[in-house]
Amino acid sequence: VIGGSDAPNVVALAGGVGGAKLAEGLQAVVGDRLTVIVNTADDTERHGLLVCADHDTVMYTLAGLENPELGWGLADDSWTVMAALERYGEEGWFRLGDQDLATHIVRTDRLRRGERLTAVCRHLQARLGVAATILPMADEPVRTQVRTDDGWLNFQDYFVRLRQAPEVHEVRFVGVEAAQPTAETLAAVAAADVIVVAPSNPIVSVGPILAVPGMTEALAHARAGGVPIAAVSGIVGGKALKGPADRMLASLGHEATALGVARLYRDLADVFVLDAVDAALAPAVEALGIRAVVTDTIMTDDASRARLARAVLAATAPA
Amino acid sequence: VIGGSDAPNVVALAGGVGGAKLAEGLQAVVGDRLTVIVNTADDTERHGLLVCADHDTVMYTLAGLENPELGWGLADDSWTVMAALERYGEEGWFRLGDQDLATHIVRTDRLRRGERLTAVCRHLQARLGVAATILPMADEPVRTQVRTDDGWLNFQDYFVRLRQAPEVHEVRFVGVEAAQPTAETLAAVAAADVIVVAPSNPIVSVGPILAVPGMTEALAHARAGGVPIAAVSGIVGGKALKGPADRMLASLGHEATALGVARLYRDLADVFVLDAVDAALAPAVEALGIRAVVTDTIMTDDASRARLARAVLAATAPA
Repeated sequence: VIGGSDAPNVVALAGGVGGAKLAEGLQAVVGDRLTVIVNTADDTERHGLLVCADHDTVMYTLAGLENPELGWGLADDSWTVMAALERYGEEGWFRLGDQDLATHIVRTDRLRRGERLTAVCRHLQARLGVAATILPMADEPVRTQVRTDDGWLNFQDYFVRLRQAPEVHEVRFVGVEAAQPTAETLAAVAAADVIVVAPSNPIVSVGPILAVPGMTEALAHARAGGVPIAAVSGIVGGKALKGPADRMLASLGHEATALGVARLYRDLADVFVLDAVDAALAPAVEALGIRAVVTDTIMTDDASRARLARAVLAATAPA
Repeated sequence: VIGGSDAPNVVALAGGVGGAKLAEGLQAVVGDRLTVIVNTADDTERHGLLVCADHDTVMYTLAGLENPELGWGLADDSWTVMAALERYGEEGWFRLGDQDLATHIVRTDRLRRGERLTAVCRHLQARLGVAATILPMADEPVRTQVRTDDGWLNFQDYFVRLRQAPEVHEVRFVGVEAAQPTAETLAAVAAADVIVVAPSNPIVSVGPILAVPGMTEALAHARAGGVPIAAVSGIVGGKALKGPADRMLASLGHEATALGVARLYRDLADVFVLDAVDAALAPAVEALGIRAVVTDTIMTDDASRARLARAVLAATAPA
């Protein structure tokens, strides 16, 4: 399957880095047949500008512009504005590169002029030449907060400022009740041949997407119509590939293993893709009523991203 | 007169470059006893960010950060964000440097949070270590428009995009009726020992300041109380030192000479400072009822700025 009119319509649900890597692999395989529905609950206002953290990581990655060292922002970006902002007394812990800032400036301007977030993001993607379609999970603002020993924190305070050090006792998605799937996300799900849940944090990356009222129903409707849903484990050998998912799963009472992730997706997915190092967990996954597919899930380069994408799509193909 | 508690309180009315140069000279002489009331009718929104063109030129100049080649922006600034904005399809004719953008980002953020423009500008000045006080002429938005053969244009369209090429048939200050002098500008005028009108464009730089309802009355009240008001000609030898003031004066029916400028200020000023090359115009200026003071008004460096500042202050001293 290499793009073109024969390629399946693929919808991926994704957060940041891990989701972006698999999305890049999927884009390499199905081209513009890929739609990525991204988490927006990590979005944050910095210096009056709206930063869409997961959207931008996915967008930059699909445009080939991402910064692989940092895991966010653009490659070879500079920090001149940030230094000038700090000279004015602005907080500097959320680093925004110069080129990256242009994204947030344009987005904020267009939103203030009344454009929907979806339209703004599509404009940005088009200008960067992204083949796939990246859709915010909702146009309405939703914001993740985590409860720690020091009370409720905004997600980026926990994630960036405190470097995920505090233990998370509870998670909430402020505003999610008032959010709704967009016409674009519903149309993408309705047109999907395959739906993929990326190896993103199941609690704070995929969780908010599924919490948008009507989204799980739309996914269930597609599945009832024969569209396979495959979820990829972001926990390998009991460790998160990136970020605090393992500790977060444990502190919230889940098992910090691929099996623990599979349990969270048991009502959602037909297929669960887990890494070869976790092959021993496959029978327990299958006991949940999900087909387990064991493969190498570590994405170190373009080739391994496309390889995993092909493996996931193959796993959902009719036997 | 070199700063300190013996220095007079000086209020200067100023636009951009010419005003900034004399303001720098005045700051060198009276230090924090200087208050500059700046034109805000050149302000413009770019990419959703409020740019206060004249304020920022004066601020950067008084902070020693100005770009002398461009006449706007900061020395040694870079253009990374601008290039990224253009990649997103944004108009690029109004060039904003990276460090400069931080000013507009912070200003816009603070305004949206409900701060007054005056407070925002004072914050920026304090962080850049400016000794003088720079006050917007009003907190309310006022925008200059010029009527050309192609109809009404926003000022920066005329000034930057069209490089002042069109002939100006009429000028208006949109919003000025709803503007008012701030408590800070009124207090500065009330406390002034000397008031100086900088060699800025009398039509579109000083004009808007004087058009704020109540400002000319405040100046007249100070003058009636014995505070001298000195205006410096920005037209030397029939040419504007910078910008289109000469052509604008002519197309609006005024004489494009220092005498033409003096006529515009005849009801405002006690003293009119004109350049040595225009010495022959001094009798005609005096015939207007204004004392004419002839000196070298060209400000090529710090020394000549301070020299002109001293000359202007000396010209207003009681005989």
